[in-house]
Amino acid sequence: MSKKVVTLGEIMLRLSTPDFKRFVQSDSLEVTYGGGEANVSAALCNYGLNGVFVSKVPNNAIGQSAINHLRRYGVDTQFVARGGDRLGIYFLETGASMRASQVIYDRAGASIADVDASEFDFDKIFEGADWFHTTGITPALSDKAAALTLAALKAAKAKGVTTSIDLNFRKKLWSKEKARVVMTELCQYVDVCIGNEEDADTTLGFTSEGTDVTKGELNLDGYKSVFKQMKDKFGFKYIASTLRESHSASDNGWSALVYDGNEFYHSKQYEVRIVDRVGSGDSFASGFIFGLVTGMALGDAAEFGVAASALKHTIPGDLNHATLNEVKELVKGDGSGRVQR
Amino acid sequence: MSKKVVTLGEIMLRLSTPDFKRFVQSDSLEVTYGGGEANVSAALCNYGLNGVFVSKVPNNAIGQSAINHLRRYGVDTQFVARGGDRLGIYFLETGASMRASQVIYDRAGASIADVDASEFDFDKIFEGADWFHTTGITPALSDKAAALTLAALKAAKAKGVTTSIDLNFRKKLWSKEKARVVMTELCQYVDVCIGNEEDADTTLGFTSEGTDVTKGELNLDGYKSVFKQMKDKFGFKYIASTLRESHSASDNGWSALVYDGNEFYHSKQYEVRIVDRVGSGDSFASGFIFGLVTGMALGDAAEFGVAASALKHTIPGDLNHATLNEVKELVKGDGSGRVQR
Amino acid sequence: MSKKVVTLGEIMLRLSTPDFKRFVQSDSLEVTYGGGEANVSAALCNYGLNGVFVSKVPNNAIGQSAINHLRRYGVDTQFVARGGDRLGIYFLETGASMRASQVIYDRAGASIADVDASEFDFDKIFEGADWFHTTGITPALSDKAAALTLAALKAAKAKGVTTSIDLNFRKKLWSKEKARVVMTELCQYVDVCIGNEEDADTTLGFTSEGTDVTKGELNLDGYKSVFKQMKDKFGFKYIASTLRESHSASDNGWSALVYDGNEFYHSKQYEVRIVDRVGSGDSFASGFIFGLVTGMALGDAAEFGVAASALKHTIPGDLNHATLNEVKELVKGDGSGRVQR
Amino acid sequence: MSKKVVTLGEIMLRLSTPDFKRFVQSDSLEVTYGGGEANVSAALCNYGLNGVFVSKVPNNAIGQSAINHLRRYGVDTQFVARGGDRLGIYFLETGASMRASQVIYDRAGASIADVDASEFDFDKIFEGADWFHTTGITPALSDKAAALTLAALKAAKAKGVTTSIDLNFRKKLWSKEKARVVMTELCQYVDVCIGNEEDADTTLGFTSEGTDVTKGELNLDGYKSVFKQMKDKFGFKYIASTLRESHSASDNGWSALVYDGNEFYHSKQYEVRIVDRVGSGDSFASGFIFGLVTGMALGDAAEFGVAASALKHTIPGDLNHATLNEVKELVKGDGSGRVQR
Amino acid sequence: MSKKVVTLGEIMLRLSTPDFKRFVQSDSLEVTYGGGEANVSAALCNYGLNGVFVSKVPNNAIGQSAINHLRRYGVDTQFVARGGDRLGIYFLETGASMRASQVIYDRAGASIADVDASEFDFDKIFEGADWFHTTGITPALSDKAAALTLAALKAAKAKGVTTSIDLNFRKKLWSKEKARVVMTELCQYVDVCIGNEEDADTTLGFTSEGTDVTKGELNLDGYKSVFKQMKDKFGFKYIASTLRESHSASDNGWSALVYDGNEFYHSKQYEVRIVDRVGSGDSFASGFIFGLVTGMALGDAAEFGVAASALKHTIPGDLNHATLNEVKELVKGDGSGRVQR
Amino acid sequence: MSKKVVTLGEIMLRLSTPDFKRFVQSDSLEVTYGGGEANVSAALCNYGLNGVFVSKVPNNAIGQSAINHLRRYGVDTQFVARGGDRLGIYFLETGASMRASQVIYDRAGASIADVDASEFDFDKIFEGADWFHTTGITPALSDKAAALTLAALKAAKAKGVTTSIDLNFRKKLWSKEKARVVMTELCQYVDVCIGNEEDADTTLGFTSEGTDVTKGELNLDGYKSVFKQMKDKFGFKYIASTLRESHSASDNGWSALVYDGNEFYHSKQYEVRIVDRVGSGDSFASGFIFGLVTGMALGDAAEFGVAASALKHTIPGDLNHATLNEVKELVKGDGSGRVQR
Repeated sequence: MSKKVVTLGEIMLRLSTPDFKRFVQSDSLEVTYGGGEANVSAALCNYGLNGVFVSKVPNNAIGQSAINHLRRYGVDTQFVARGGDRLGIYFLETGASMRASQVIYDRAGASIADVDASEFDFDKIFEGADWFHTTGITPALSDKAAALTLAALKAAKAKGVTTSIDLNFRKKLWSKEKARVVMTELCQYVDVCIGNEEDADTTLGFTSEGTDVTKGELNLDGYKSVFKQMKDKFGFKYIASTLRESHSASDNGWSALVYDGNEFYHSKQYEVRIVDRVGSGDSFASGFIFGLVTGMALGDAAEFGVAASALKHTIPGDLNHATLNEVKELVKGDGSGRVQR
Repeated sequence: MSKKVVTLGEIMLRLSTPDFKRFVQSDSLEVTYGGGEANVSAALCNYGLNGVFVSKVPNNAIGQSAINHLRRYGVDTQFVARGGDRLGIYFLETGASMRASQVIYDRAGASIADVDASEFDFDKIFEGADWFHTTGITPALSDKAAALTLAALKAAKAKGVTTSIDLNFRKKLWSKEKARVVMTELCQYVDVCIGNEEDADTTLGFTSEGTDVTKGELNLDGYKSVFKQMKDKFGFKYIASTLRESHSASDNGWSALVYDGNEFYHSKQYEVRIVDRVGSGDSFASGFIFGLVTGMALGDAAEFGVAASALKHTIPGDLNHATLNEVKELVKGDGSGRVQR
Repeated sequence: MSKKVVTLGEIMLRLSTPDFKRFVQSDSLEVTYGGGEANVSAALCNYGLNGVFVSKVPNNAIGQSAINHLRRYGVDTQFVARGGDRLGIYFLETGASMRASQVIYDRAGASIADVDASEFDFDKIFEGADWFHTTGITPALSDKAAALTLAALKAAKAKGVTTSIDLNFRKKLWSKEKARVVMTELCQYVDVCIGNEEDADTTLGFTSEGTDVTKGELNLDGYKSVFKQMKDKFGFKYIASTLRESHSASDNGWSALVYDGNEFYHSKQYEVRIVDRVGSGDSFASGFIFGLVTGMALGDAAEFGVAASALKHTIPGDLNHATLNEVKELVKGDGSGRVQR
Repeated sequence: MSKKVVTLGEIMLRLSTPDFKRFVQSDSLEVTYGGGEANVSAALCNYGLNGVFVSKVPNNAIGQSAINHLRRYGVDTQFVARGGDRLGIYFLETGASMRASQVIYDRAGASIADVDASEFDFDKIFEGADWFHTTGITPALSDKAAALTLAALKAAKAKGVTTSIDLNFRKKLWSKEKARVVMTELCQYVDVCIGNEEDADTTLGFTSEGTDVTKGELNLDGYKSVFKQMKDKFGFKYIASTLRESHSASDNGWSALVYDGNEFYHSKQYEVRIVDRVGSGDSFASGFIFGLVTGMALGDAAEFGVAASALKHTIPGDLNHATLNEVKELVKGDGSGRVQR
Repeated sequence: MSKKVVTLGEIMLRLSTPDFKRFVQSDSLEVTYGGGEANVSAALCNYGLNGVFVSKVPNNAIGQSAINHLRRYGVDTQFVARGGDRLGIYFLETGASMRASQVIYDRAGASIADVDASEFDFDKIFEGADWFHTTGITPALSDKAAALTLAALKAAKAKGVTTSIDLNFRKKLWSKEKARVVMTELCQYVDVCIGNEEDADTTLGFTSEGTDVTKGELNLDGYKSVFKQMKDKFGFKYIASTLRESHSASDNGWSALVYDGNEFYHSKQYEVRIVDRVGSGDSFASGFIFGLVTGMALGDAAEFGVAASALKHTIPGDLNHATLNEVKELVKGDGSGRVQR
Repeated sequence: MSKKVVTLGEIMLRLSTPDFKRFVQSDSLEVTYGGGEANVSAALCNYGLNGVFVSKVPNNAIGQSAINHLRRYGVDTQFVARGGDRLGIYFLETGASMRASQVIYDRAGASIADVDASEFDFDKIFEGADWFHTTGITPALSDKAAALTLAALKAAKAKGVTTSIDLNFRKKLWSKEKARVVMTELCQYVDVCIGNEEDADTTLGFTSEGTDVTKGELNLDGYKSVFKQMKDKFGFKYIASTLRESHSASDNGWSALVYDGNEFYHSKQYEVRIVDRVGSGDSFASGFIFGLVTGMALGDAAEFGVAASALKHTIPGDLNHATLNEVKELVKGDGSGRVQR
């Protein structure tokens, strides 16, 4: 029977310019929906799991469209609350070469920020669940959303559900200082912690010296030092991070480092020609969770996550539509891109 | 030399579904920018006047795009302040036949609502101005915006500038009760008052019995009674209203009634096949103002405004791109729609 | 608790030309999915019911996309079988004025035609179901599909589920003669029979003289005579038909006639400006079923069905996205199409 | 064996705004190709005749694309000369309701205007030809083009080919005075003359009093008087004109009047909901020629031409893609627009 | 006078997702037409030859559109038979980086599979022909299509026409075993054999050890061994294969190896940034045939074919629209991609 | 206060094929507006300067749209004259890999070519101006345009305005011989001369041996020799050239060489993945002018210009919409293309 994974978080309306146009040039915007946690839920459904998404959207046609987008890809949306004022929006302009992609967030006042834990029946939500996942974005949205996140983590732990968090610091949502207070509390209830380069520092205060993210050079030793500190403080079962070498907005190196408290595993590194890199971190998280929840060894789960997210870079939109079989084939080594007839 | 007309108000990002699609069907949205006052300013520039738009937009690429849209059509945007959090948005789904168009407003927290009169140099703004126009939407946005509107009206009057207001009640922005208090004060400073069917009641408390707007039948006597009450209370120089007979979302009858305190003038009525009726009230206001500010007699100004706004119904987007010459030809009677080669 | 309605039938890939283009002009095609029974299921979900769709699609990305389309609109697709060779396709060119819309079917060899009743667990499917609906298209697809339809009707009746059928004769799928044999058997298990103008004749052999469908004139007496014959032979609880006055491809009159064995009820007639009339019969069926299954009186169910399907004519695609509230408002009489803000 | 019809004239690049947008709003333009004579040639191929188009286009990818467009629809383009500087362009903005469609011509310096009769082998071109058609646009393009037109008409007559001309006065190309001199000479060699309302006056000097084209009222008596004058002066075998009642840019009445020197025949009048009326005159000419060249009686040819061109109004682009069968069905009376499955 | 080349085979409707979207994301599909043999015919016309395409399409607007597409690019379609049920379809999703392009074939029941040699007048078809080309796809479609292919090859040989075949094994159409039987017979009548890496093995049973196509490494020695075996068994005049180094779905190395029984010639290798690689094999075949039929030496024909097909990778759609001059310039060495003004 | 920069030249309608399509494949064209001098003016406004564009456009909606495009991006268009026959057009097909982009100019008869210096009030135009810029394209358009260019340069010098020219030889507009005569005279009034690889030779007769532009190799010594000759003959204050290494239509190396009569400065070289390279020279010119007019040192201005134009390669359309801040960041070294949130 397929595993049940619950995720909690935001889903936003994504409005992106077509054909590498800049915002000031665009007279139309492409519409899709996504968000760090929604992306994870949809990807897990895509691999055949039972993904349940918990959130809140406004009771209008835009909120309904967000739900519809998730349903289209198989997500169980029965626990999404309706109410509040608006769906958060983010505007995206896709970069190329030395021109970076731009994201303009317009998420203040979103329904999910005006939420109360009582709107959700966690007993029912976590009934039979195998995993619970959320990210550092949700608690950053508002104090209410932070309280909800904490309540959900506690409820999950009380039900014996494995929990994971992707640190995902968003500097426009809150300060480092506030993030550290909130995230430190939340991490008490987390089994698996995922964090990219800067997040461990900004949200938990662990410093990984020597990585200048604008250079695209990796500093594995720094990562290892940080992972050990995280393990010591929080006792996470597993810690994982993707490693991006950002050569340009068009080409990136991509791999992951995982740690179980004893050994480090650095995955294969892919060189990706980018179509759309938004959601690539989420696609790693979902692939990694898929691996762990279906019983893969840590290194295999990391390889699955990295291959899945390498493929995500080639797919437009927030969601990862790479199939289970495609990920498996890439893990096995076929990246030749030959036409499949 | 061309007349200078100042307008104050909001400009929003308009996101509309293409090809009569409903929101839940749309995977792309067409982008344009508009708002009751911005629409008036752009139309006046379109007729060759010097239109100055006063507003506030966020200091990001979306705010810049709104400004660019107005500049494209000749509006002087030098007095648009930058700051605040976001540009207001409205989502539009165009109806047909018995299916009504739907508008979803997402304007809470817009920059223009978080505004202070000190951000604008009214001395400079009204220097040499011939007319000032605003609408009942602006004061409804926030107390700050209402204060700004009042300040602007006072400044205009102090400079001897003719003032006009379009009552434009928006029930999602404020209550009737609050509207009446605020609008009653603002109307002290208004020379020309424009209001469609329900606005006189909701915002000023004058009742026009017998018009059921869902029926599309006109009750001219009721209008006349209301106009007289408005004249009596506020001493407006002119009062005007468009009259819509809404046969369906595809076909409307369209005319206007104007009043100078002595006589009523009911314009020619057009039967319009609708392409996009959003902004049609604004296109009447701008046409009517154009007529008055350039010295037309009241009835001629009304005919100009009605012809202009009849044409607007055939043009996609908020703005009226009917040319001065096209409006004049239609006033003269050529509505045959023969190809112009 | 919301009612459960099961429908059985085909879902096809619909490829339509944009902007009134003819097939020979089109260099792109718009993609959606639909089919007589799928359209009913999606509309019922749209009104808040629990719609379960039973079908078979190929095990490839096109089949998956068809399922995704239904899931997007809330349909329960857990009982859709996977296998066979292909998804049926229909090409659509939308007409205007005196140019009729053209449909080219390309449905031979579709997965649903190569189906066996054993692929479906009808015990589970009909568990707790309130209604079962299918159409005369499904049995026309193949002998196997006809056998499946019969099995499903029998299973439904055995479970005490109310059954309905829309006769829907398709002359390119089978002959009148064959249709009459098969449909006569199926109708033994049907409670509610829906059939438009020609179907009663072609599929059941009941003649309604005097209606020339190319003229668009109605012959209510002829209908009544046919309905009585149908009642006499099959004992249907209710019989219903939409009545179309086809003035042109752009404008139609639209109403319905229903019969309970005692009285005839002729609904209000709407004059519709057409955006997309494909699926309008299905939208009547779904509205009518919605009315009956939720306990409306026969005439009210007919009015709901007619209003729902009048609205469908204004919505692109096969599915009816008119909301429950919009249909109710139209039934009440507001067809003015005024903008909803 | 299918009839061979030669046409001589211009083909232009047509750039039109989408979705009723005005030129100043459009950030993309739809591309097609057409012109008065090219439209006739393509329509005749569409009905199964052998249409040969004679013209000149530049030797670049734009000229090639024009040829390709005609080849796509079966036109024999082997006699199209290559050379000169550019393809003529026309910009089109489609109107609606009281807003007229706008055409901006940009055809100065087109290759076809810089042409010499020696570039064409008329012996070969007219070998086995049954009909030759041109319009008053071609001679208006330049003196060289006028000389070519004259040469072609003479060559056709020398070969015993029936000739026709559509007067088609274009006021931006030449003066009435010049038109009259040139056209009077050309008409010496014409058997069948087609001319709409104003053309008989502007190009031949025959006055039809009482028709105000901006009113959309017909004055059949005036037409008859003009036709008689034309017959008297030029001895045309047949004279024909379409009659347009331009209610608006969206709705027109459409019929034709034909004359054989003895009797007048006024065709059935269609009320058309317009999708694209450009090329409707050409679609009448091609339908009328089709009728005559395939041996229909005059009235039947007129009915065929009117039905064909009524259908053209519903088809985007310059060319008429109504099929032979569709035209025949409409002549027979089925304008109900019911879906053809 | 230009050479006449006859090709026999299928033309399909190609439906492709835009902008790197996956099938499950696409709400529109781009339409074009192509097929292994049609692609060759259009490319030869593109170079100025007289390309005649022999096939069968359904007698509906989709079949007509396929013919129109070929006519647009100059192909002589007079011998395309009309009849049967449908046009074959293939769905295409364009990959990027490590995500491979996906093709879903939906060609069962296509008109060309239900064909009889008697539908074609080979005497007339091959009159004056210089070359006949077909591929291993056509005989794989059905036994009837295989019989037609054999009949065509025999007729060509009887008329002294040079023949070529592109082996093109399609595993979804037939088994290796069946392919070997049929292709071995067909190859008796073939002068020039083109086959990419796997085809020689699957369709003729010649093994080229050591090439793992998922690695993208070339094994020239293996190819040479296979070519010798092919020469020995069938006595082909020339044997040719393209050589693809598939670095990813975005970047490929591309060259060709040709053999005349004495010497091998390995062409220049191009590194191509891929826009659309579908039809690249056909573009090599057409370039190579163009070279041979116009009298180039073998190596020059190979270089022409490789340059032509390198350019094809940069052009969307199945057909190669690289001009004769562009191919020649690339053969000479200008691959700098500087803007041509 | 922001610097005022006047530019004189042409603005054209740009019609480009989407998605790498070739002209013969395209059924729509994307619309934008640009031209060597207009591009410079818009970019300077983009950086916050006061850009004034002097030109002439036809008095129709196409001319108005060109003006609107510039206004949208802040250009002061008050001195653009209206009149003449047409707006020049250029058609663009974007290449990839070894397939070069193609430009087809259709600019004969453009309004700007039929111009008289008396149409412009240079006293007012240059009032308070800091810089005047034009290119070698304008004088090539016609003798009248050359006379205008000379008049403008003289007027600028008379007002003490710094002048610059971009040599920009266009071989389809005039001969080398004529260019040399005209440009030699114009250069008497020029302070800063910008010219790419071939222009110094074609327009001024200075030979830079050893650069084969189809190879993409740079010959810095040759450039230096040419710059010295230019300095000696004309006494330019600064001379600059961009240096392009054209690896393919998809990838270029890009840098600049500048000279002040004493020292050469070779900027950083960028490797750019190209989205749209049209206007890249203009984006260097505008960046370089921005640097100089705002007081940067020569090398800094060159680095600013090169970074700005490297970014331009990633932006569709003629205009450079890279922001001032983005250019500065790239000059500082961040080309990692990381998402900006």
